[in-house]
Amino acid sequence: MEETGSRPLDALNIARNKTVMVDLKNGLRYIGKLKAFDIHINVVLSDAEEHFNGEVKRKLGTVFIRGDTITIISPP
Amino acid sequence: MEETGSRPLDALNIARNKTVMVDLKNGLRYIGKLKAFDIHINVVLSDAEEHFNGEVKRKLGTVFIRGDTITIISPP
Amino acid sequence: MEETGSRPLDALNIARNKTVMVDLKNGLRYIGKLKAFDIHINVVLSDAEEHFNGEVKRKLGTVFIRGDTITIISPP
Amino acid sequence: MEETGSRPLDALNIARNKTVMVDLKNGLRYIGKLKAFDIHINVVLSDAEEHFNGEVKRKLGTVFIRGDTITIISPP
Amino acid sequence: MEETGSRPLDALNIARNKTVMVDLKNGLRYIGKLKAFDIHINVVLSDAEEHFNGEVKRKLGTVFIRGDTITIISPP
Amino acid sequence: MEETGSRPLDALNIARNKTVMVDLKNGLRYIGKLKAFDIHINVVLSDAEEHFNGEVKRKLGTVFIRGDTITIISPP
Amino acid sequence: MEETGSRPLDALNIARNKTVMVDLKNGLRYIGKLKAFDIHINVVLSDAEEHFNGEVKRKLGTVFIRGDTITIISPP
Repeated sequence: MEETGSRPLDALNIARNKTVMVDLKNGLRYIGKLKAFDIHINVVLSDAEEHFNGEVKRKLGTVFIRGDTITIISPP
Repeated sequence: MEETGSRPLDALNIARNKTVMVDLKNGLRYIGKLKAFDIHINVVLSDAEEHFNGEVKRKLGTVFIRGDTITIISPP
Repeated sequence: MEETGSRPLDALNIARNKTVMVDLKNGLRYIGKLKAFDIHINVVLSDAEEHFNGEVKRKLGTVFIRGDTITIISPP
Repeated sequence: MEETGSRPLDALNIARNKTVMVDLKNGLRYIGKLKAFDIHINVVLSDAEEHFNGEVKRKLGTVFIRGDTITIISPP
Repeated sequence: MEETGSRPLDALNIARNKTVMVDLKNGLRYIGKLKAFDIHINVVLSDAEEHFNGEVKRKLGTVFIRGDTITIISPP
Repeated sequence: MEETGSRPLDALNIARNKTVMVDLKNGLRYIGKLKAFDIHINVVLSDAEEHFNGEVKRKLGTVFIRGDTITIISPP
Repeated sequence: MEETGSRPLDALNIARNKTVMVDLKNGLRYIGKLKAFDIHINVVLSDAEEHFNGEVKRKLGTVFIRGDTITIISPP
């Protein structure tokens, strides 16, 4: 893995303090500012919204998301 | 991870003794005061209520929630 | 984790020899005296009853419950 | 864990060579003599019967049951 | 665990080169000669048949079965 | 494992910076340039598209995919 | 484990560069030449075809299959 940024967690590190979309196995989506993550892909978002089927369901302040429930993390 | 509070568990530590909402994979939600957690995200709430589909189902005193059943933890 | 009793398993330790309710992922509930537990949250109850949909299904003597099937443990 | 017999596996050790009921996540139940178990809760029964919905489906001689498929183990 | 043969894998070792029945979580059953197994309960059968709902679906030569998909292993 | 390229992750290393198709357990497919992966098979794609039932659902820039949700990775 | 070839991965090693059938938990089947595998049973096939319900769905070149999604591996 000779390149800079060639490890998956580097992509999350670059996204820190930026708005990301986190999709869960149960179909829920959380959009918020990426404040923290760890090697289990546990994630903390601030100013987060919960979406389902493309609609905002709730506005949450800070949300801790357990890593094993996540499918993808992406800029929205 | 150069910032203060940049690890996910720091967000839980800040929420200690505050009221949080814990959502489970089975659709149940527990709202109560966060008394304890560990690296597996096992959680203990006090003065907890069990919610389903937005309605209170039961009032529980203390509840231990096994980490691998949790999707998110958030202030309500 | 500077407080006394701030680890989740401390809450289980306090409940030892007391009656607790153990809810499983499959919807079954076991109510009995908490005799033992370990870090995997494997649990042993004595004088246990199995409940489903709020009704007693069976009276069991001692029951060993595998930790990974548990969602919550609480006083009833 | 200051008591004798306060660890969950002690309860299984006491049940060794006695008839136990093992319930699986898929709804099957095995009743037989507990011959062996390990820390993963892999279990071996002898003279085992397979039950489903309260009826005997098959008589099995020895059966090895993989631990992660088990919900509870109890005297019948 | 003071007895001879008191560990679950001993029961598999005794069954080596004998015909066994392996049931999977998805309802499929494989019957064949037990040639190999490991601590993950990964299993290799020779002269194996795949059964579903009590009927032979296919004859397979050698089959490698991933341990985490297995519920029970038993002589047929 | 005497051959060059005989380890599964070598196949991913060869695909680095090439377009790959990543299928998930939930039926979603992501097609994009493979930028990074690790031993958990966490994957990062750039210029990624999300497909479902053969149709493009969304265009995503960079996407981090959690390894345990992946079934296969292949050139499209 | 005193015999030659008595470990499950030996059976996979013998199948290297031969055509094998890999069945997944989601019902998909991949048939191709076994190029690589590891202790997690991550597998790489070349000249692979994807089958569902007995029909070829797609021809894939090389395919990396994540181990935890596999049920069995067998010569076709």
